Amino acid sequence: MSLTIGVDVGGTKVAAGVVDEDGTIVDKLKRSTPAARPDDTADVIADVVLELLTRHDVTAVGIGAAGFVDETRSTVLFAPNLAWRDEPVKKRVEDRIGRQVIVENDANAAAWAEAKLGAARGQHHMILITVGTGIGAGMVLDGRLYRGRWGSAGEPGHYRVVPDGRLCGCGNQGCWEQYASGNALVAEARELARRAPSASVRLLQLAGGTADRIDGPAVTQAAREGDAGALSCFEIVGTWLGHGLADLAAILDPGCFVIGGGVSEAGEMLLGPARVAFEHSLTGRTHRQLAEIRPAELGPDAGLIGAADLARQG
Amino acid sequence: MSLTIGVDVGGTKVAAGVVDEDGTIVDKLKRSTPAARPDDTADVIADVVLELLTRHDVTAVGIGAAGFVDETRSTVLFAPNLAWRDEPVKKRVEDRIGRQVIVENDANAAAWAEAKLGAARGQHHMILITVGTGIGAGMVLDGRLYRGRWGSAGEPGHYRVVPDGRLCGCGNQGCWEQYASGNALVAEARELARRAPSASVRLLQLAGGTADRIDGPAVTQAAREGDAGALSCFEIVGTWLGHGLADLAAILDPGCFVIGGGVSEAGEMLLGPARVAFEHSLTGRTHRQLAEIRPAELGPDAGLIGAADLARQG
Repeated sequence: MSLTIGVDVGGTKVAAGVVDEDGTIVDKLKRSTPAARPDDTADVIADVVLELLTRHDVTAVGIGAAGFVDETRSTVLFAPNLAWRDEPVKKRVEDRIGRQVIVENDANAAAWAEAKLGAARGQHHMILITVGTGIGAGMVLDGRLYRGRWGSAGEPGHYRVVPDGRLCGCGNQGCWEQYASGNALVAEARELARRAPSASVRLLQLAGGTADRIDGPAVTQAAREGDAGALSCFEIVGTWLGHGLADLAAILDPGCFVIGGGVSEAGEMLLGPARVAFEHSLTGRTHRQLAEIRPAELGPDAGLIGAADLARQG
Repeated sequence: MSLTIGVDVGGTKVAAGVVDEDGTIVDKLKRSTPAARPDDTADVIADVVLELLTRHDVTAVGIGAAGFVDETRSTVLFAPNLAWRDEPVKKRVEDRIGRQVIVENDANAAAWAEAKLGAARGQHHMILITVGTGIGAGMVLDGRLYRGRWGSAGEPGHYRVVPDGRLCGCGNQGCWEQYASGNALVAEARELARRAPSASVRLLQLAGGTADRIDGPAVTQAAREGDAGALSCFEIVGTWLGHGLADLAAILDPGCFVIGGGVSEAGEMLLGPARVAFEHSLTGRTHRQLAEIRPAELGPDAGLIGAADLARQG
């Protein structure tokens, strides 16, 4: 069985793994990301790859990076949490390790992994939505990773769901990720605690009594305990999630959606309301098949596994 | 040069043409559509094809139909303006004409024609938006017509742009086509005439003095004459159009949009505001290339030409 290396480069850490054809990680290394200087970031990527190469016979190397990757899969045009601006990542890493690498957007790599080896195995039309701080996405359409004309496809987190809506970090207003993300969940919970403290006793308790210190894990914990206020926050965010999936299905008609990211660890507390909203709002729902909404299977390693498998494809 | 036949089946008429490899229509027939009985509709399609076959040496036959076509391109699942419900159109027509046909959604066929032979020649990632009574769409992604898992892709007219917004014929509220279509243009003009008759003198004049009799051609004519009220209606509808294109670009990053349909005959009165809104609202606009927004080139024959060319592809 051939082995390949996948590297997941995020704003805080670089994770590299040796992955077999089934997606099993047989060896793994982690480093913190020196994000401030592009050369330092490339050095760390090269270090972990070279270390893994001394231990394993590897046929290819793939890098998944949190940023816009150009259509030639060579250059990171912009990375919100790294100093990469029009950075020739492929060349930088190849020069250091002396072999070819492929570079892919991390959410694209994760989508590929879930489509090939995870929750959407066997599906030719799938969309991965990662619900974390914001919303990330990757799409496999007609059996192929879809990148768009310039490599910038797959940013549904920034389509507009509310005209003149909440401000978004991207500079626009009303973006989906301001309504269906971890940030949105926390915002709902804090708002609830401020406006209705008597309905938020447990949430406030978990946050030391201060609404503004309620965080995502506190909302999830309270909801798991059955707290009605916390569950209502998941209901609101899950409903926005499902509405957005219905919009994506109107446009792309995928066979399934895979929901990953930190917030998706809440499972049915998030996916239950999302399914209800999806089924109630999909256009033409009485004349068509409905896409399934499934939890991701590969967890936070999906990007690394996908980068490794994409490297295998060449 | 090989010739193929394309048939465009709409709710009111059936148009069939013999088309060469460059997309030129060398012969054409039209009939009104007997829409009430599925067998009658199939009879008329067969009649026009058989008549054209007596006159030309043709290698293939393609049908573009206004309805949901299944992923095997055999059955029309639902056609809003025809009596077709789970209708095996491919078989019905093949039985009558004694040769193979392919069946495609009419907007998909039109998108293929514009991508291959029209405004988006040479583009591998394009989206056709037809702005007529409602909004139709077809997409060519990675050089291939995109149909989705069950053939129902390409209905962005029914993604939600306003929560709890205007009622839509699809049963939902706030669909894009309620804001960026011919119906929306007329609704804006009538509203203007009711609320501000002094700003709508020309519009009311063209409609015999009654706001509710203002129609699309009247708005276009008044706008062409420079009427400020009519131009403001195009501004509103064009802005909604551009916002929607920005949402589609966030998701799909196409190289260009082609705008067709009856309302697009207004040209820059519609496309100008659409471009402004698109450029102001595309997420990440400072870090990416912007898709072009072009007028369609093939006019109302695009569906027929596309069906003929898709038949040639097999």
